[in-house]
Amino acid sequence: MDENKLKNWFNKRKERKDQMNANSLMDGILNQNISILSTAITLLESSRKEDKIISKELITLCLPYSGNSIRIGITGVPGVGKSSFIEALGKSLLEEGKKIAVLAIDPSSEISGGSILGDKTRMEELSIKKNVFIRPSPAGKTLGGVAQKTRESILLCEAAGFDVILIETVGVGQSETMVHSMVDFFLLLMLSGAGDELQGIKRGIMEMADSIFITKSDGDNVIKAKLASREYQNALHLFPPNSNGWIPKSSTCSSLSGENISKVWEIIKSFENHTKLNGWFLKKRQNQDTFWFQETLKELILSDFFNNGSIIERIEKIKTQIQEGKITSFQAASEIYLEYLKKQNGTSI
Amino acid sequence: MDENKLKNWFNKRKERKDQMNANSLMDGILNQNISILSTAITLLESSRKEDKIISKELITLCLPYSGNSIRIGITGVPGVGKSSFIEALGKSLLEEGKKIAVLAIDPSSEISGGSILGDKTRMEELSIKKNVFIRPSPAGKTLGGVAQKTRESILLCEAAGFDVILIETVGVGQSETMVHSMVDFFLLLMLSGAGDELQGIKRGIMEMADSIFITKSDGDNVIKAKLASREYQNALHLFPPNSNGWIPKSSTCSSLSGENISKVWEIIKSFENHTKLNGWFLKKRQNQDTFWFQETLKELILSDFFNNGSIIERIEKIKTQIQEGKITSFQAASEIYLEYLKKQNGTSI
Repeated sequence: MDENKLKNWFNKRKERKDQMNANSLMDGILNQNISILSTAITLLESSRKEDKIISKELITLCLPYSGNSIRIGITGVPGVGKSSFIEALGKSLLEEGKKIAVLAIDPSSEISGGSILGDKTRMEELSIKKNVFIRPSPAGKTLGGVAQKTRESILLCEAAGFDVILIETVGVGQSETMVHSMVDFFLLLMLSGAGDELQGIKRGIMEMADSIFITKSDGDNVIKAKLASREYQNALHLFPPNSNGWIPKSSTCSSLSGENISKVWEIIKSFENHTKLNGWFLKKRQNQDTFWFQETLKELILSDFFNNGSIIERIEKIKTQIQEGKITSFQAASEIYLEYLKKQNGTSI
Repeated sequence: MDENKLKNWFNKRKERKDQMNANSLMDGILNQNISILSTAITLLESSRKEDKIISKELITLCLPYSGNSIRIGITGVPGVGKSSFIEALGKSLLEEGKKIAVLAIDPSSEISGGSILGDKTRMEELSIKKNVFIRPSPAGKTLGGVAQKTRESILLCEAAGFDVILIETVGVGQSETMVHSMVDFFLLLMLSGAGDELQGIKRGIMEMADSIFITKSDGDNVIKAKLASREYQNALHLFPPNSNGWIPKSSTCSSLSGENISKVWEIIKSFENHTKLNGWFLKKRQNQDTFWFQETLKELILSDFFNNGSIIERIEKIKTQIQEGKITSFQAASEIYLEYLKKQNGTSI
């Protein structure tokens, strides 16, 4: 490399570095520069101290410009056709002039098998469109960590002018409860066969859903899907009513034929109108804010305790004693806690 | 009072006090002395230091004799007829030679209105029978506190030879999730009208139920109840399967006519057989032990933090900032936590 080339390289590097400050990143995001949005989200995921300082500042700067979107959680077992569904829904929303961000929660760190990291390639048509931003959400060691990064990504996408945020998750682990706690509308995709296909899905998800759509309602499957949808609609009616007054809707759709894809959006719009009119839309977001504040604070406090090596060992030992019926859960907990307090006082003297 | 009477009184008092040690209480409990069981449970509820020491010792002594029962949680909104149901079920179990303990969770500290403290008088016939022990569970400041006292009461009842433990709760607050986490079998009582009567019940409870019974299936109500039961059975089939392989059953019953009261017990027995055969019965109890150990430990750690006066004030202030969109939940949490750490280090220097 000759001297000029080297100089050039250094200058470019410096230029890039100069851009990496919160103010210029914010400018880029507010100017709807997708490449800068992407850089900023990468920054959120970084564990470097300097990056953390910048991203914290950036979030604060973008916060006043965020919030103007509808946040939609989409879940369903692997095989239900989430990617094709999002591709079909996304294309239909683009025609309405919407700007769509798709964030996928990567469950690779969880017990489940189904990875959705490949989504970017799987949503082939959608990913190359203008006004679309697709990004697998950062994985993290803790659910709280993933939640924070996902929530912050939402804020940045909103500041960048995306008005529909789709958050995709596999309905098998803990991630869908987390997603449910950060979206306005929660959509459950189901297959028509009520047998083995359901094995994976977690109990409790049905009662979280604001709407259920039976996917793959095409070809020979149409009648089966309609029947399933009717059954789910009956079941949803039996559920205790939501405090927001919304009655969850069940229907069928086909990403292949496009049947009812626009109906999904109609239902979401009607939900948005309904909850904005009765004040629940804002109230839910405020509750979610409070929820995440408390969860994060608890996680910070508890992680100090539970990451202590000697505590981990003691806990494993006492768990065995509990299982052997030698001590109750409550006695065990208070013993561990007293030991911890003693140790704390011991070190501070 | 003359001198003799006074002496007598003091002696009796001393005698009573002598009995109040863990060993003699245990003897009484193992000898199925109901009055001593009752005294022991009162001791669990006491906040006096001496009482706490004795009751802790007593629990440890009784632990090896506990566990030999089936623990059944019963929930449903006020008006569903829980007390009459328990009275009917209890009488039918007595005929089978069972010994029944009924513990009612007092929700008076929660938002709900329906008090079940009056149960002892409401279960008139049952309460005067031999082999029956009815007791409203202690109220407590925290859900964890109530949980601990209820779990310990279960252990003592089991040591006293009660082989069916019924734990009654109102399905409107947080108590039913707590009860679900300490029983083998969770029974949901429902009314046939799927309208206003359901308003109170909490979402998510249906998916917790191992069985649903539609109550008051008598007189003009029989057909309506049967219809409702069939609808619930269909809905239950749509739910994701339980990991224990059990398919929740729905049926009707009448505490008035006695219809299907014995069926409740048949279903519970069949559940017990099913889960004992596939190993889930024991596994669930072990999971519950671990759950309560972790919950209690977390509560102990967090209560220190959240009961700190200056922290409470700071939290209220920062919550306002969150709601005003000036700071994210995560930034707020980390700020509060950093302040706390600084203060801690400050005081220990």
